[in-house]
Parts: sequence; structure tokens; C-alpha cells
Amino acid sequence: MEHIRNKDLSHRKVQKKIRVVDREGRPLSGQQLHLMQTEHEFLFGCGAFEVMPYALKNENKEVTDKWLEVFNYGTLPFYWGRYEPEEGKPDRDHLMKAAEFLKSRKVKVKGHPLCWHTVCADWLMKYDNRTILEKQLKRIEREVTGFAGVIDMWDVINEVVIMPIFDKYDNAVTRICKDLGRVRLIKEVFEEAHRANPDAVLLLNDFNTSIDYEILIDGCLNAGVPITAIGIQSHQHQGYWGAEKLYEVLERFSHFGLPLHFTENTLISGQIMPAHIEDLNDYQVSEWPTTPEGEERQAKEVEEMYRILFSHPRVQAITTWDFRDGAWLGAPSGFLRKDGSVKPSYEMLRKLIHEEWKTDMTLTTDENGVAVADAFRGRYEIDLKESTTEASFTDDSELVITV
Amino acid sequence: MEHIRNKDLSHRKVQKKIRVVDREGRPLSGQQLHLMQTEHEFLFGCGAFEVMPYALKNENKEVTDKWLEVFNYGTLPFYWGRYEPEEGKPDRDHLMKAAEFLKSRKVKVKGHPLCWHTVCADWLMKYDNRTILEKQLKRIEREVTGFAGVIDMWDVINEVVIMPIFDKYDNAVTRICKDLGRVRLIKEVFEEAHRANPDAVLLLNDFNTSIDYEILIDGCLNAGVPITAIGIQSHQHQGYWGAEKLYEVLERFSHFGLPLHFTENTLISGQIMPAHIEDLNDYQVSEWPTTPEGEERQAKEVEEMYRILFSHPRVQAITTWDFRDGAWLGAPSGFLRKDGSVKPSYEMLRKLIHEEWKTDMTLTTDENGVAVADAFRGRYEIDLKESTTEASFTDDSELVITV
Repeated sequence: MEHIRNKDLSHRKVQKKIRVVDREGRPLSGQQLHLMQTEHEFLFGCGAFEVMPYALKNENKEVTDKWLEVFNYGTLPFYWGRYEPEEGKPDRDHLMKAAEFLKSRKVKVKGHPLCWHTVCADWLMKYDNRTILEKQLKRIEREVTGFAGVIDMWDVINEVVIMPIFDKYDNAVTRICKDLGRVRLIKEVFEEAHRANPDAVLLLNDFNTSIDYEILIDGCLNAGVPITAIGIQSHQHQGYWGAEKLYEVLERFSHFGLPLHFTENTLISGQIMPAHIEDLNDYQVSEWPTTPEGEERQAKEVEEMYRILFSHPRVQAITTWDFRDGAWLGAPSGFLRKDGSVKPSYEMLRKLIHEEWKTDMTLTTDENGVAVADAFRGRYEIDLKESTTEASFTDDSELVITV
Repeated sequence: MEHIRNKDLSHRKVQKKIRVVDREGRPLSGQQLHLMQTEHEFLFGCGAFEVMPYALKNENKEVTDKWLEVFNYGTLPFYWGRYEPEEGKPDRDHLMKAAEFLKSRKVKVKGHPLCWHTVCADWLMKYDNRTILEKQLKRIEREVTGFAGVIDMWDVINEVVIMPIFDKYDNAVTRICKDLGRVRLIKEVFEEAHRANPDAVLLLNDFNTSIDYEILIDGCLNAGVPITAIGIQSHQHQGYWGAEKLYEVLERFSHFGLPLHFTENTLISGQIMPAHIEDLNDYQVSEWPTTPEGEERQAKEVEEMYRILFSHPRVQAITTWDFRDGAWLGAPSGFLRKDGSVKPSYEMLRKLIHEEWKTDMTLTTDENGVAVADAFRGRYEIDLKESTTEASFTDDSELVITV
């Protein structure tokens, strides 16, 4: 872990030159500046499903507070089958309210997903493939336009490697993917999303991290699909990938020159799921408890994995999938136990994000009125005497504060 | 085998209406026509390496005669490392002589391959990647233009799925594939070949028949790569795929709507290579004899496989890789034994191609001067009294013979 702890993080920082001058522009030396980072540029995310009860009904306050204490980025569910269980009656209001709540708390929101074969709307299946595609594209246009300004980041399409050969049950999206082929369907849905909101961050997302996904991305980019970031799922119910696999995946997917988002991360604090299970959904257990040893292990794995990802220049976001145990598959996959108490992993991540990787420093200007801050990228409040200046630190350009 | 023997072959045939008239255009009834097919539309191919000694030096006549007795389609070697072992000194003359010889015997020729990481030219490695790509494209332009009219069919690029991750030894093509990505390199080399000969049949070729290759093709087609046919290798040193896998591969690769070429087929008549060998080239044995039981098995497998492929409408070509035993890997992979004697598989294939799937019939015109031939697609000689008419049967359009 030591060499991972000592990795270069200069890509996460700026060397911010702050010049303090008086109203006549004369440099003021010996001025004490207190810099406090209020927001991170990096997206530290979590599934925000747990936050919805509070956003909608003021329930679940404690859990929500714990969520908001750590994360600046949340994923909200747009599974078509649940979002619009009956054709023409989408659940826009609840999702808008949840998204606006998160936005008001300075949390960036991503919608997940706009197209997927799982949790797909069953009512689509009565249509022919041409109509299904039309409705899929209209759905994308409706959500991406309708939420623009509140949600400007989308998992546009999910798990396409398996999509046309998915054979667990018939569904409308597998049908059109079989028909059009993977790349053509990706192209259609991305182009629609891009038309609907040209400024949106649009992700392709997959759990497959093999050569299949590489070749798929390669094909899409060469076909001109407007992918803004590559989404990589990392549900590790069957055990932590480890540093070696993580570096290997990072290297292979960095090649495209696009930002990488770890979109769905899971590290569990209980028994590991047996390796022979191919589809995680096939693992059904009545009880899957968190254990003290498991929690220690999870905290260590969270530390190592987040350190590795944060130290890699291409990575822009990490989202842990379950905030609290017992969500997907009933797994002990959260930062919180079922009873809402925090695990060591929560404390570990809070410390990394809000202590180690957050800038809080006091500087004194030199004879030229200048102080240089070695500071993590993000939003800042700079206190100087009685006044406070707010600023974004995104590059090394000079910031001038006039007293 | 019975249901495979009885498969519909109507896509391989025409219902040719032949009308016999006198000089005034009056129909002549009761005329006896003898139709004899002289060429097949379907490409029954074989590696033509064995034919080169005869084409170049009049050696190997018996083997060459046996080759020409069965096949109408041959693959000639354009491995860069052998074709141009020293930069600027390509072996054009030998290859041109061999290709022209085959053409003179009505054998269609394919060049193999224009870009591949194996048997690559070592002298390329002294250049930087930009220069390697330039030289690769110039090489393609040189061969495709230089052989146009004699060779109008090319395996443009070979085994791209593995190309950028091939790590057995450093080579120039893996380097540029790593750099550009698979789809971009494919696009570059195909566009160059297409510019050089817009009428050429251009193949992508791979031994990988998994989802990787499907996704790669999908990406290429969506990126506008001018692929005219999909090449599928089927080296079965580790045992015959069997009908089930064959149908499965046919179904998956038919989806693109392009012609399928089985470019490199191997069925052996000796001991099967152990399943644990991953790269066939790793199997090194001092002796790999053909056996009587192996030869019977090979003949049966050849029969079943060729019947299945010939009955599939998308398949346009089947090429067996080794004509004679002891070529690649020293395997008993030929239709001929090492001593040049023919195996049962040779006889089996000869019968299929030149008896069962070849038309030789006599018809009599009806009261309207018409006879309809249920005939395999290809070139024909039609004897009527003392005259002979030559014609291509490619569709059901009427052929009028004036006496």
C-alpha cells in the first residue's frame, strides 16, 4: 500500500498563484490568506437511491445526512420499466424533485440508464422493432431535454456487449439490438441524447471489461458516436480485483483518450460470492451478513482502490453503487450497515475525500503580494481579513484579490 | 448426415429458360440440347502454394494436375516478410507468374495477406510508427494496383482481434495497431486497397470466431470500412467443429448481410492436436502421420462441412488451406499424402464438386422451342446439333439460341 499512498497526485492539483493588491493595484505583502476547499472537481459518487425518501418525503434524514457528508455526485434511477410502468405515465415529478434536491446540495446528478435490456418496459414488447426504436429514441429525447440543467450526465446505454445475446427473458431492447447490431443501436441512442442536450456528459457503461468492450468502444469511436466518457462497472461481490487487475483495466481503457468513470463500484464486507456464479443476479441467499473482519477488509480495499483510481489521470469519477447494506442482491455492500450505522469503509472514504484530498491551508503573501497554493482542484473560499472570496481552482492562472 | 445431404440448394441454381429459334425467330421444337457446366460460380478453393513450383519451374506436375482437377480458386502467399525480405526488392515476378498461370487455368486468385503481424517484414521495425503506417499503405497500393486484373481479391488484413495484444515477439504491425486501435488500422488499410482497386473483393480475415470478431466487424461496418466479404478461418487441428458449431458460426456472422468466405479450412487425417494448445504454432511434433482411420474420418468431415457450407446462402467460398500433407505444422491436413497420392477426402470433394454439384444434362425443347434447365450457377457449354454456345448462368433470364 505504501507505494500506492505515495503516488503522484499533481494532476488533481493546481499551483494557484494568488496576488493580493490594494485598490491602486499595489501588491500587499504579509497578508494572511486562509484557503478552504468547498467542492471537489473530482466526482466522488454514490447511488443516490437512498436519498430519495428524504428528497420526496423528508424520511431517512440520518442516512441522507451521512450520504451528503461524503459525496458530491449521485446516480438516480431511470430504469424504463419502473420510470414508466404504464406507457405515457412517466414518473417525472419524483425524479425531478430528487434531482433538484441533490442539485440544491451541490451534488451533481447522473441519470441511469436511458437504454437497457434489463428492467425494460414490458409494454414495449407489443410493438414491432421499428416502433420500439422510435419509442426508445423519443424516451431519450424526453428525459434528456426534460431534465437538462438539473441532470446533464447520463448513462445512455448499459451493458451492450451482452445486449443482443441476453437470453434470460425476451425484452424489447434485446430485440432491437439484435436487429440493428450493437454499434448502430449505440449510435442511434447517443446521437439522440446528444441532439437533446449537446452539453451533456454521455456515458457508455458496461460490466464487461474484457477485449469485447475495448473493441466495442473502438468501433463506436470510429463510427463517430459522441461518447464523452467510458463507464466501467466494478461490482466485486466475488472478491476485490486487486491492484494488478485495476491497473491493467486502467491501462487498456485509457488508450481511447476519454475520461474514465467507475460507475458502479461494489466492495463487500461479508462472505465473498462463489466464483462459479456467472450472472451475479443468480446468487440468492436468505441472509448475507456484514462481519467485523469483512468490514476491515472492505475498508482496506476501498482505500487501495480509491487511491489507485484517484492517482490515475484519466479517472474523473468513482461511484459506489450501494450506500447501505442490503440493497442489490441483499449484499453487505454499503458504507452503512442495514441499521444505518457507519462502517470503517465510510470513515476511510470520508477521511480520504475530506481530509487527505481536500485543501485547507493558510498562506502569507510575499514581498510581491503573492502566495502560491498547492491545492486540490475545486471550489474555494479564501478568507482575507474580514472578506471572503469564492473561486474555482481549475488551472494555474493567477487569481487577483483586491482589498 | 441424411438431413444435411437433403438440404435445399436452390440458391446455388438457376431455372434457366433456353429458347431455340431459327433465323426468322420461329421456335424450334424437339431440339436436343446438351448442357455441360464448365465452371462453378461458387469458389472451391485451396492454398495454391503447391502449384507454384509448376507455375515457375514446371516442377510438381502431378500434384498440380490434381489441384487443377478439383479447384477453381487459389490463395497465393503475399506475407510481407517473405515477399519483400529486403526493403525495395519485392518478389513481384514470381508471384505474378504464378497468378497468371492460375488465371490461364480459369482459377480465381486471392492474395493473402496485405497486412499481418506474423511473417511481417523485420526491416520495418527501424522506422517510427508514422513511417511504418505509410510504408504499409504504400505496400498495399503497390500490390493491389500492380496485380489488378490478375488478382482482384485480397485478404486485406489478418487476425486483427489479437493484433494489438500479440506479444510473442515485437513487430511493426502490432506496434501500429496498438497505436491506432484495431478499427482505425482496418479502416486505413481497407480504404487504401479500395482506392487502389475499387472493383476488388476485400476481406477481413480472422481465426477468432467469438463475439470479439462480431463486435469488430460491427464496428468496422458502422465506421464505413469497405469490407466486401467476411473471412472465417477454420483450422480444425484440434478436431472437427461439428455441424452444431458450424451452424452457430454461420448464423452469427450471416447477420451482417455480407458474403462469408471460409478462407483457411483444415481437417486432418491423423491424431488430433490436444485441446490445451492455445496457439496452434506451439504444437511441435517430429512426426504427424496420416492414418487409415484418420483418412476415413477426414473424408466424412469434409463431406459434412462442405455440404453444410454449400447449402448456406451467404457462403460464397471455401478454401482448404493445405493441399498436401506436411505443410503447415507438418500436419496430415492435405487432400494428398506427402507422397502425392490422393486420400479419400480428395475423392469425396472431387465427386461433390464435379459430379453432384455440377450440371451435365440433356434437354429437348417443347412446342414453343423452350427447355428449362435446373442448373448449378456457372459457365456452360450448350451443344445443339453441330454448334456449341457458351454462356454464364447467373440468373433465370431467358437465353435464346438461334440456329
